[in-house]
Amino acid sequence: MDMAMRRAASSAVRALTASSGVNSFNRHLSSAPESKKIVGVFYKANEYASKNPNFVGCVENALGIRDWLESQGHKYIVTDDKEGANCELEKHIPDLHVLITTPFHPAYVTAERIKRAKNLQLLLTAGIGSDHIDLKAAAEAGLTVAEVTGSNVVSVAEDELMRILILVRNFLPGYHQVINGDWNVAGIAYRAYDLEGKTVGTVGAGRIGRLLLQRLKPFNCNLLYHDRLKISPELEKETGAKFEEDLDKMLAKCDIIVVNTPLTEKTWGMFNKERISKLKKGVLIVNNARGAIMDTQAVADACASGHIAGYSGDVWYPQPAPKDHPWRYMPNQAMTPHISGTTIDAQLRYAAGVKDMLDRYFKGDDFPEQHYIVRKGELASQYR
Amino acid sequence: MDMAMRRAASSAVRALTASSGVNSFNRHLSSAPESKKIVGVFYKANEYASKNPNFVGCVENALGIRDWLESQGHKYIVTDDKEGANCELEKHIPDLHVLITTPFHPAYVTAERIKRAKNLQLLLTAGIGSDHIDLKAAAEAGLTVAEVTGSNVVSVAEDELMRILILVRNFLPGYHQVINGDWNVAGIAYRAYDLEGKTVGTVGAGRIGRLLLQRLKPFNCNLLYHDRLKISPELEKETGAKFEEDLDKMLAKCDIIVVNTPLTEKTWGMFNKERISKLKKGVLIVNNARGAIMDTQAVADACASGHIAGYSGDVWYPQPAPKDHPWRYMPNQAMTPHISGTTIDAQLRYAAGVKDMLDRYFKGDDFPEQHYIVRKGELASQYR
Repeated sequence: MDMAMRRAASSAVRALTASSGVNSFNRHLSSAPESKKIVGVFYKANEYASKNPNFVGCVENALGIRDWLESQGHKYIVTDDKEGANCELEKHIPDLHVLITTPFHPAYVTAERIKRAKNLQLLLTAGIGSDHIDLKAAAEAGLTVAEVTGSNVVSVAEDELMRILILVRNFLPGYHQVINGDWNVAGIAYRAYDLEGKTVGTVGAGRIGRLLLQRLKPFNCNLLYHDRLKISPELEKETGAKFEEDLDKMLAKCDIIVVNTPLTEKTWGMFNKERISKLKKGVLIVNNARGAIMDTQAVADACASGHIAGYSGDVWYPQPAPKDHPWRYMPNQAMTPHISGTTIDAQLRYAAGVKDMLDRYFKGDDFPEQHYIVRKGELASQYR
Repeated sequence: MDMAMRRAASSAVRALTASSGVNSFNRHLSSAPESKKIVGVFYKANEYASKNPNFVGCVENALGIRDWLESQGHKYIVTDDKEGANCELEKHIPDLHVLITTPFHPAYVTAERIKRAKNLQLLLTAGIGSDHIDLKAAAEAGLTVAEVTGSNVVSVAEDELMRILILVRNFLPGYHQVINGDWNVAGIAYRAYDLEGKTVGTVGAGRIGRLLLQRLKPFNCNLLYHDRLKISPELEKETGAKFEEDLDKMLAKCDIIVVNTPLTEKTWGMFNKERISKLKKGVLIVNNARGAIMDTQAVADACASGHIAGYSGDVWYPQPAPKDHPWRYMPNQAMTPHISGTTIDAQLRYAAGVKDMLDRYFKGDDFPEQHYIVRKGELASQYR
């Protein structure tokens, strides 16, 4: 109680201090050389924080930029407490200048929060995927939203290929036999296949989708992709992937579907009961993009009926997945928490990317063009 | 009881019939156009046998060659009962001409069994890996031993890449969280890595090792291989893999070791306590070759200490793995029963290969050269 009181008090002091010297309506990125209040919302590592010196993506290690920020006179608050009116994040909304969030433990930046964040100028995503931010509201408020584009693409593409293989080769029933003291090759083999020769389609061929196609190439599959734009003729030739203009025509051909498209108003719930019913019976689906691209119950029902023979991914709606989320209990799932873009390698990349953007922000410099999600009131094309 | 009695009786009748017309000492492959007794030992599928029409590798579906064999007047006995003096296989040892076995449910063909199999001419392995056969004794007895070379190579190479990714990306702790109702990204992320940039070495670069190197290529790893012979300059260039003449020097460099060498007297127990102690701390090991290449307890101890950070494979010693096999209980294992070469696709390939060799045998024709393991008293080079 004492602690909470002190925290609330110091927060009120900070709010007072911050609002005194700063023009609350200056939402532009031309940052004066002054002390900024930066808040980061990450996942807590507890006993794991000290187990790996490169584990920078957690609250405790705070992207490894605390000393650097504080040596320049900035304030750096880090928390994992992001939900509800009394959470730690809420205390800093009124006076923070920069909010760093992550898709792995998303702090939802609603229109309402943006309205109250009078000093907010910059929203940085440590990782990729900024759909936990109300981008329209951010654009209207004149904020800048940026990600560390590219920081997770290799990680996620690798992870997708792992999940494809886990499903097509029926890995998990065998693993369960091992830990349960059983041995029944037939119980695995009757639905285990090679990846070779199967038709794999990616919905979306952005950076992750393209890296996946390159990694799939030596497996001698029939590769298809659907997107608004075709990939380069060179990459088409290198991967042998064929462009499919009509999404549903492509999906009906696929043994394995991989989702590589951002969550937007258009893709929200795109895999609903009707669309799933038109897929091949026994289709496998890998989705590391966003959980809400699926109709949760429709996926669970199709796994139960066997129409979907396997579903794997690391994204859920909502996140963290509640204990009673139906995907935890559906048959033939190979799910994990949201993890694919937060390997140690990816953490080091997005920590470096966030530091670089903060440095540019302090100096009033532009960011690398591809990092912008919202700039000068405009959404990046993939979010429109 | 009744059933067992009848079976024993009919077996005795068959033994009598068969031994009357055939020269017991004719061990050569020049097969006269006569009725042969062919015995197949496969795993039982029970309720799974009818779930997939292409599931031909089990006892019930018997490689899908029963009608073909019987229409030509041959006898075809199929069983999974292969151990002990009173097993079904034992009843047929005295008079069978051809024995078809599989590494997934190995019937051990000992010198003693070979001695008693007076009519035996041909040992066919449905799949790859004939170390369950006493090859020396088979050679001395003038038998022919052949596998369906190539039938499983794609399957096993794919499976190895899956296991590499499962270990390096730390998949299983995340999966356990999902099924246990938990959500703790940090508990996974602190030891999850990308495959990109890691040093991967294969011990053995035969057909499977080479296919693995090709599939690893787009992951941008540092690829090493050790074998008696170098791979072709073209393949070295294509994969970027570097030859390492000294096994232990290569192993000390590896973040990930993959075993792709057959089990021989030389490789039996090659990963013992001493060799493991010289590996990088935190090394990952994938072994789909043979369980006995590892010292079972040394691997379990190194997983417990963390020296080996992850171990995955589908091969055990012995097989089936007993309920108290230490690998079932060691930390950071991603094991399955022996499954990688018996996907539905692989089953169709090795069933077709066995049928083709039987057809050639009946006609007195040679097999494709690469299928021979023992021919005219000589072992194939990889088994010497």
